[in-house]
Amino acid sequence: MSSTGTAFDPQTLESLLTDGGKVLTAPDDLASYGCDWTRIYEPAPIAVVLPKSTEEVQAIVRFANEQHMALVPSGGRTGLSAGAVAANGELVVAFDRMNQILDFNASDRIVQCQAGVVTEQLQNFAEEQDLYYPVDFASAGSSQLGGNLSTNAGGIKVIRYGMSRDWVAGLKVVTGSGEILELNRGLEKNNTGYDLRQLFIGGEGTLGFITEATMKLTRQPTGLTVMVLGLNDLTNTMDVLQAFRNKLDLTAYEFFSHEAIQHVQQHAEVQSPFETEAPYYALLEFEAISDGVLEEAMGIFEQCVESGWVLDGVISQSEAQAEKLWQLRERISESIAPRTPYKNDLSVRVSRVPEFLQEIDSVVQKEYPDFEIVWFGHIGDGNLHLNILKPEDMEKAEFFRRCETVNDLVFGIVERYEGSVSAEHGVGMVKKKYLGYTKSEAEIAVMKGIKRVFDPNGIMNPGKLIDSE
Amino acid sequence: MSSTGTAFDPQTLESLLTDGGKVLTAPDDLASYGCDWTRIYEPAPIAVVLPKSTEEVQAIVRFANEQHMALVPSGGRTGLSAGAVAANGELVVAFDRMNQILDFNASDRIVQCQAGVVTEQLQNFAEEQDLYYPVDFASAGSSQLGGNLSTNAGGIKVIRYGMSRDWVAGLKVVTGSGEILELNRGLEKNNTGYDLRQLFIGGEGTLGFITEATMKLTRQPTGLTVMVLGLNDLTNTMDVLQAFRNKLDLTAYEFFSHEAIQHVQQHAEVQSPFETEAPYYALLEFEAISDGVLEEAMGIFEQCVESGWVLDGVISQSEAQAEKLWQLRERISESIAPRTPYKNDLSVRVSRVPEFLQEIDSVVQKEYPDFEIVWFGHIGDGNLHLNILKPEDMEKAEFFRRCETVNDLVFGIVERYEGSVSAEHGVGMVKKKYLGYTKSEAEIAVMKGIKRVFDPNGIMNPGKLIDSE
Repeated sequence: MSSTGTAFDPQTLESLLTDGGKVLTAPDDLASYGCDWTRIYEPAPIAVVLPKSTEEVQAIVRFANEQHMALVPSGGRTGLSAGAVAANGELVVAFDRMNQILDFNASDRIVQCQAGVVTEQLQNFAEEQDLYYPVDFASAGSSQLGGNLSTNAGGIKVIRYGMSRDWVAGLKVVTGSGEILELNRGLEKNNTGYDLRQLFIGGEGTLGFITEATMKLTRQPTGLTVMVLGLNDLTNTMDVLQAFRNKLDLTAYEFFSHEAIQHVQQHAEVQSPFETEAPYYALLEFEAISDGVLEEAMGIFEQCVESGWVLDGVISQSEAQAEKLWQLRERISESIAPRTPYKNDLSVRVSRVPEFLQEIDSVVQKEYPDFEIVWFGHIGDGNLHLNILKPEDMEKAEFFRRCETVNDLVFGIVERYEGSVSAEHGVGMVKKKYLGYTKSEAEIAVMKGIKRVFDPNGIMNPGKLIDSE
Repeated sequence: MSSTGTAFDPQTLESLLTDGGKVLTAPDDLASYGCDWTRIYEPAPIAVVLPKSTEEVQAIVRFANEQHMALVPSGGRTGLSAGAVAANGELVVAFDRMNQILDFNASDRIVQCQAGVVTEQLQNFAEEQDLYYPVDFASAGSSQLGGNLSTNAGGIKVIRYGMSRDWVAGLKVVTGSGEILELNRGLEKNNTGYDLRQLFIGGEGTLGFITEATMKLTRQPTGLTVMVLGLNDLTNTMDVLQAFRNKLDLTAYEFFSHEAIQHVQQHAEVQSPFETEAPYYALLEFEAISDGVLEEAMGIFEQCVESGWVLDGVISQSEAQAEKLWQLRERISESIAPRTPYKNDLSVRVSRVPEFLQEIDSVVQKEYPDFEIVWFGHIGDGNLHLNILKPEDMEKAEFFRRCETVNDLVFGIVERYEGSVSAEHGVGMVKKKYLGYTKSEAEIAVMKGIKRVFDPNGIMNPGKLIDSE
């Protein structure tokens, strides 16, 4: 559904916003609110509405149902799958003005937030309470909670702390039929039927919009210590992971290739972790809560060296050193950004990662020898980011066209490994046509049925995730 | 829907079971497979079918759709809400013969199980691999995985390890329309639309039947240490919880009243934890992974005594002592069993527990002064078990009738505290009429809509959780 051709009157909409929400129609606003970090689709919303309350969102949804108008939710607009892009005359519902932390309870360790609260704002709030919100990723400074939850955002601490899904104690949502639902109301245990919360988490705004979320917090980690290890062979990443994980609760286990480090070093003043050169690197992090834990970690490290899995390694002696080592991993994305990387966000079961990665790597290198590939990712979760860099002399359009043909090869391999075409970035418009590589026809049919239950008129973020029928 | 009046032919059904499943119709089998641990409804199934494979379950569901026959799933039959009771001429689908552990992967730490695997079987299997399956409760020796997941079972380690939901990496299910769905296939990260897994977890078999589950395992805990603390005031349970939780990862935080301990001591040879008598007790458990952790715990304990929150306490010095202290909590249920307890399984936000508990306690004592109340529960999760003991001289029927009138008072308070009428036992038939105290009408309407998507003919465990329309 698109609103194109509907006689839309911004003033009628504005008159429904009794809590101070407003409507924007200036071309600049339409352009900026109509897109995310993907730059594939041209933004073309009919207007942008910034509600101030759940009740205003409800009024907007009811208005859209009456007007047969499509709605697109908009948070921090840092998405990588065009899940929040309005390219088809839709009305954008942006949550920037619903950015309040409403309540906090220290005993319950839960904090009630409006959907427009920025991830970093929540992280900082937790820190002020001597607590911790552990979901963290590159776009934390601008991504909003509502968007994080709608895409079930992951990031660099998933191995210990899970996805955004795991931190939701309650949700307030407005469904596509304009009902306000309060889901789970902050309870730790509540076995009273289908857990509808879970459908809105990762639902990409296609069933309704999240307007408030009650998030769990946890205690702050202490003595975070980082090791960077040089590995000779990809399969060793798994041996090392298992050796450490059997004894310690890792808070991160990341992976990057030698090529990735080279890009970081060309881009920024970041030192090599050690002199020995290795084709692959693992970065692991844990809480050195006592000297005993540190000794244990060193023991496992020595055992990994003796087993021939690890060529060399370094361990942080201070928080500053730990942060420095993290730079090797965290600055990869910005280092390769000038090369217009085509990003894929794949996952398979952890044990299959080495074989899977090698198969894709060799197929892409064989079919596209002029493409440079940079691998990195959350290997402890089976999640790999395949970045294909644009050759300097190739036109952007031609490059993206060729990447699309790479996709069919890559996703064919993903399907054979029973993997996911989107580990943490969601589906949106970019991955929609590839959904069948991960989900069966029967499952997609059920998803469409569920969409009709919540959104009978198909006005909630249409064209994203699944096609209506 | 009921099959009463349908001409059911066991031989036709048996002929569909090509993998060795069988059909039972002997009165003893009907009686034992038709019920769970509740004894409110008279079992009256038309037959019991024991499939051997997912494909046989699919054949049964297709048969039931053709015959307009209601199906009831049956696992270990330890349920406390009559979710697996067949009282209305249904065909029972029992998973006893689908009890194989099919696959295990050490790197992925996941284990693929058929739905009929017994909880303890999975716990033992994990231990043999030097790993740990942390969901644990009194009925672990007979409850089956499929049932645990269909009710999202909780238990005594939820504060650290979460509910059954948190350990599911993948599910194979047969929907009410006879489709086999493979949900999430063991992936750690997979953001490709609605996470349908979550609907089957806690779905009580009303959408379809779980036939296989891929479960996550974790590392074994080390140095589990137990403290039992005597508290003077109920509100102190929260102060103590917070003090410990800010520094340590608790693996349990349980609660029981002086009356509960008295019943245990009358029933079994269990010593008092210490001489000081206290009206309330907290049992907490943590991993003393090093001497530093133990010192930290002792420091917090001293601080709790100084603050006047704790009257006295004891700490286990060995695994045997830890187990002994656990008896104080674990043997409560069997100690009060001879008194025909009427059980409620309530939850509120953790911080509201003291006030909530006192309010219910005083209402029940005022209105029913002849009833003895025993409180215990997973207070660290906000989950309380309210047990009303039958006066010796009261008839059972009269007692249950009066308990039902207590329910309306109790659930009215639950509603006011925004709590749950079923924290971990599920809804089934016993709690169905009280669902509205926890869920709104709009939410229940959505649940019914979702049921129709998966089970258009309403043959899957009808009459449980929600009524069809």
